[in-house]
Amino acid sequence: MNNLKENKKLSIICFSGSFDKLVAAFTLATGAAAVNYDVHIFFTFWGLNAIKNPKGRRFIGKGAMAKTFNYLMGGINNVPLSRLNFFGISPKLMSSMMKKRNVATLKELIEAAIALDVNLYSCEMSMNILGIEMKDFIPEIKEVLAVPKFLEYSAGGERIFI
Amino acid sequence: MNNLKENKKLSIICFSGSFDKLVAAFTLATGAAAVNYDVHIFFTFWGLNAIKNPKGRRFIGKGAMAKTFNYLMGGINNVPLSRLNFFGISPKLMSSMMKKRNVATLKELIEAAIALDVNLYSCEMSMNILGIEMKDFIPEIKEVLAVPKFLEYSAGGERIFI
Amino acid sequence: MNNLKENKKLSIICFSGSFDKLVAAFTLATGAAAVNYDVHIFFTFWGLNAIKNPKGRRFIGKGAMAKTFNYLMGGINNVPLSRLNFFGISPKLMSSMMKKRNVATLKELIEAAIALDVNLYSCEMSMNILGIEMKDFIPEIKEVLAVPKFLEYSAGGERIFI
Repeated sequence: MNNLKENKKLSIICFSGSFDKLVAAFTLATGAAAVNYDVHIFFTFWGLNAIKNPKGRRFIGKGAMAKTFNYLMGGINNVPLSRLNFFGISPKLMSSMMKKRNVATLKELIEAAIALDVNLYSCEMSMNILGIEMKDFIPEIKEVLAVPKFLEYSAGGERIFI
Repeated sequence: MNNLKENKKLSIICFSGSFDKLVAAFTLATGAAAVNYDVHIFFTFWGLNAIKNPKGRRFIGKGAMAKTFNYLMGGINNVPLSRLNFFGISPKLMSSMMKKRNVATLKELIEAAIALDVNLYSCEMSMNILGIEMKDFIPEIKEVLAVPKFLEYSAGGERIFI
Repeated sequence: MNNLKENKKLSIICFSGSFDKLVAAFTLATGAAAVNYDVHIFFTFWGLNAIKNPKGRRFIGKGAMAKTFNYLMGGINNVPLSRLNFFGISPKLMSSMMKKRNVATLKELIEAAIALDVNLYSCEMSMNILGIEMKDFIPEIKEVLAVPKFLEYSAGGERIFI
């Protein structure tokens, strides 16, 4: 019984910041939360794009290099497709295909994850490298974690790297 | 004892449609099936390229956008390498290197997976977005799954995202 | 109790050879080892770049195709960023940002993993395809593994594909 309950925990290390992989991560997260899984998403590196606020390109971070890199990374509004991106046209096409088929868009998936109490964390080391802080994220981020804390929170469940 | 048996289940979310990652997914799947693991592969997004039938580029799906996108994605016969692709030359070179070394090619790995009773599923949402149906896949696909069903089938085992 | 101990095993299939994903893999590995996890890294395909010795581009392997491919893949000194690589400038910028912020560099992370007794393995099949041998790796590689052996060593713990 105890074992069964433990198996109902899913933790996603969201490393990727591409449109398609973020759709995959949030579809998995919301689908699991909907069937009562305890879901944790740990955003790191490119994945931070999903939780930056505001959501477009901005020069944030400390130092010129960090600022430039953050600008180029962008935010959730301009995440690329991991293949066949065509300079950003494809994510827009994909979004319109999703709307047409009544599939939740990436924006709606993120909102659903928040509504379903999916736990969102950001990675301390990535934030250090990119010189960004909690104030640069959406307010729903619960905590800044390093690896040991992430391992503790995700223990006894499944860990997936996307 | 029960626990040991449970650990012999491996589920792969096959998101990638690149030659090298498909080789990795099917090598892991067949290797695990060969030592009596219960193996499940859930094909989603680019991974659907591995199971489309026929296997080349085709205009399938509903609507012009879906048709174009499916054509560009292609099928198992023209999956790219995730790096150093050189317009599709590298997967061909890689296949010839695999043959030369007597390593199973991707085509052989897929046949082996089917022979070893690896369970193959496709993702409902990706099919909706791309407007494709069961008839567009190889006949070995057992079922179309959404996330909750996938979580149910893979419960008590290991889940890997490729 | 037994269960708790079993959960303290983490196995990483290190498929990627990009700078950012290698940083992620080794950060996770060293972080877990630091809190007493039993950690295993299985290097396959592009991931072999992390363990080649010497560490730059070299014509190794049997046959002209393997030699060319290994040269293009390179070693740990010239791994690219998975996005925004800018012909190799970004990994250098990233390394300098890491130093500036006192974050361990990739080289330091690999040294730390070795010091923390992280178990390093290489993939038999990838070595066959690329025509490379144990002598082409750093001496810390413990063993060449195929899938069944990897499944055996990683059993009872968590498996992550990066």
